[in-house]
Amino acid sequence: MIKKFTPTINHFVALVKLNPLDNSSRFVEEIADGIVESLNLHVVKKTLYKFHPEGLTSAYILSESHLLIHTWPEFGMLHIDLVTCSKCNGHEFRNSLTTVFSKYNIESIEIKSPNFDLS
Amino acid sequence: MIKKFTPTINHFVALVKLNPLDNSSRFVEEIADGIVESLNLHVVKKTLYKFHPEGLTSAYILSESHLLIHTWPEFGMLHIDLVTCSKCNGHEFRNSLTTVFSKYNIESIEIKSPNFDLS
Repeated sequence: MIKKFTPTINHFVALVKLNPLDNSSRFVEEIADGIVESLNLHVVKKTLYKFHPEGLTSAYILSESHLLIHTWPEFGMLHIDLVTCSKCNGHEFRNSLTTVFSKYNIESIEIKSPNFDLS
Repeated sequence: MIKKFTPTINHFVALVKLNPLDNSSRFVEEIADGIVESLNLHVVKKTLYKFHPEGLTSAYILSESHLLIHTWPEFGMLHIDLVTCSKCNGHEFRNSLTTVFSKYNIESIEIKSPNFDLS
């Protein structure tokens, strides 16, 4: 039997609270583009959806997997979901967030990584 | 100071190995639609990207957040990423996967949940 190996999959999830939160599509795109650029990722397709009365979802399909951002303006919060087969690590992800949000008033940044144990 | 609460966010990630894996967009859409239907989720926008020479990414923006599926045909593998503010639990997610893949030859299903501790 031929063993099928598994690709490297890095997965990072962040909850970011800002005060105030800019809920514009321009702001969310600025954040997404900043993360992509700082981690040297590559966008192959983008889409965005505006909920009513509020809230946005931005979806970037990457050549390295995906970056999804949701806003919850009622909570002043963004949920960021990055899946990548690049060699990004948790330290780089946190640095990226600190950089892209540096000009905003950050209340908190929580990060989780649900990486599979591929050993 | 007014405390800003956090919404319920359920996050489930699965690695599914099939032998063989059908890498068609029709198959991936069948799986995504099956998960959405079985968990009573609601799609507001869909997009799909085909990589060359192979591999697909399907992105569904949901009224409850998102469902992303990537295929790695070279590994016979799908990566499924579901973020939802609905009351879906891990048991329901596993049941959903077992149902939608029931007519395929499943080598393995691994599930992780990176839910934030909101206490």
